[in-house]
Amino acid sequence: MRVVIALGGNALLRRGQPMTAENQRENVRIAAEQIAKVHKGNELVIAHGNGPQVGLLALQGAAYHQQDSKVETYPLDVLGAETQGMIGYMIEQEMGNVLPKDVPFATLLTQVEVDKADPAFQNPTKFVGPVYEKEEAERLAAEKGWSIKADGDKFRRVVPSPLPKRIFELNPIKWILEKGAVVCCAGGGGIPTYFESEGKLSGIEAVIDKDLCSSLLARELDADMLVIATDVDATYINWGKEDQKAIFEAHPQAFRDLNFPAGSMGPKVDAACEFAEKTGKVAVIGALADIEAIVAGKAGTRISTKFEGITYR
Amino acid sequence: MRVVIALGGNALLRRGQPMTAENQRENVRIAAEQIAKVHKGNELVIAHGNGPQVGLLALQGAAYHQQDSKVETYPLDVLGAETQGMIGYMIEQEMGNVLPKDVPFATLLTQVEVDKADPAFQNPTKFVGPVYEKEEAERLAAEKGWSIKADGDKFRRVVPSPLPKRIFELNPIKWILEKGAVVCCAGGGGIPTYFESEGKLSGIEAVIDKDLCSSLLARELDADMLVIATDVDATYINWGKEDQKAIFEAHPQAFRDLNFPAGSMGPKVDAACEFAEKTGKVAVIGALADIEAIVAGKAGTRISTKFEGITYR
Repeated sequence: MRVVIALGGNALLRRGQPMTAENQRENVRIAAEQIAKVHKGNELVIAHGNGPQVGLLALQGAAYHQQDSKVETYPLDVLGAETQGMIGYMIEQEMGNVLPKDVPFATLLTQVEVDKADPAFQNPTKFVGPVYEKEEAERLAAEKGWSIKADGDKFRRVVPSPLPKRIFELNPIKWILEKGAVVCCAGGGGIPTYFESEGKLSGIEAVIDKDLCSSLLARELDADMLVIATDVDATYINWGKEDQKAIFEAHPQAFRDLNFPAGSMGPKVDAACEFAEKTGKVAVIGALADIEAIVAGKAGTRISTKFEGITYR
Repeated sequence: MRVVIALGGNALLRRGQPMTAENQRENVRIAAEQIAKVHKGNELVIAHGNGPQVGLLALQGAAYHQQDSKVETYPLDVLGAETQGMIGYMIEQEMGNVLPKDVPFATLLTQVEVDKADPAFQNPTKFVGPVYEKEEAERLAAEKGWSIKADGDKFRRVVPSPLPKRIFELNPIKWILEKGAVVCCAGGGGIPTYFESEGKLSGIEAVIDKDLCSSLLARELDADMLVIATDVDATYINWGKEDQKAIFEAHPQAFRDLNFPAGSMGPKVDAACEFAEKTGKVAVIGALADIEAIVAGKAGTRISTKFEGITYR
């Protein structure tokens, strides 16, 4: 099977952990050991989030800008590219350390086109970068044209999260995959770009949801399965209540009808349903620790048009 | 022809320019316009330096570490990976903007093996990161196990620059190249790695010379030409004196016998001679602005075992 695995940001850096290189590497090592279990007999594509990493680079850039006023924090497209390098390197190295030595591995930089007319640009929602006091945030918003929103009692910059339309490096990704390599790509949902004018591609201040981009990637690669790996073992109804129930299998329409709260589950639901609807294959939302059982069809929440309604565990 | 072009660091950021994203992009755009001139009829591989960029990331990391003591500046292997993402992205996007739309392009993260027994580890010579006052440098050296050296009246960290032994992503690079894509890889001389133990690859605190790595890459790819692009139009004898003379063609042995001063020209001479000696093909040291004439055999300093002695322009 050709399997696209979308690694959640907290597979790389657990909530509350200091953002050190050592912590990231340790988490990546654990993830690599899991993923390696499903390498045999499958073509693997690994995509990943980059939220905490982009946040760190923005913080580092802001700290240095205080020392050198000429060098601003780099824009989000460039920071995204940096995180593809950083995270891709750790994944590639740690996967290489657990797979047989003759398995080729490649990490490809991935640019993704978004639509400048995407309504997300009118309603920025994704927090990025440092927290500020209200006054400082308002000053920066005026100076740099940022949108800001309250995050607890502090303020932060918010940026648009437009839909991914096109993955530019699709053919090279396919070529390498067909040769039997494990491919790491589409990091952080891809580097956000748009056509400024006929033929002129530019970066844009946005972040693309990594699950929606992984879904597009999986569809374009004719993948047999999309695995959205997160830190819970399934999608639940009545989550956190006494009568919570884990969903085992669901038709995408029935799954969408559950109206999960927007937050972090929203894009996962959309990503899984889109893949299921457009391909007739199975998308799974589940825990990375269960990856073997997920690929074997025995764990996670499985979404496919082959299933009727919803069944629970 | 299959041509490997090694872009010098100052093709990306001119000496003395503030290290802004805009300056880098503008320089990359100019470089891309030059390189595009030799795309037709040739297979192109673009490698590049990353000195100023690694320096900036180290400065940003150090500035943030002052604000958050838990998060140290990331190690050089990870910073190198970040610069491969950042620079590769800019090159890929700007090349895409000047080449026909149907030309595929791919940027591959590149890990390079070095030998832990390389004598460079006993004699670190490459400056990286911020400048410090002597006392602060000595404190950091003691605390972090750094080597430090005087750089003018300040002090800086120095790191080893071991020889590149092996490029891990060679096969994926070849596969993509054979499909007609332009490939950007081996940025900054590659991410420095070594085998810590049987089968366990790790990053290491070092920087690999990008010209020596490009030479290895060109040899392993069976390239027809290695172009070491710099900001001078040729290699000169008596450089800066009244009787300076530009070298047109040279046999590698005669070229080596000129004993260029170590500095920045040393690795370029070694890189060009190694390629010429081991392949029988031509290596050229010249200006990016002359790339068309270089590929046509009419500009730059050309090194090959086909030439006898040295001829001047």
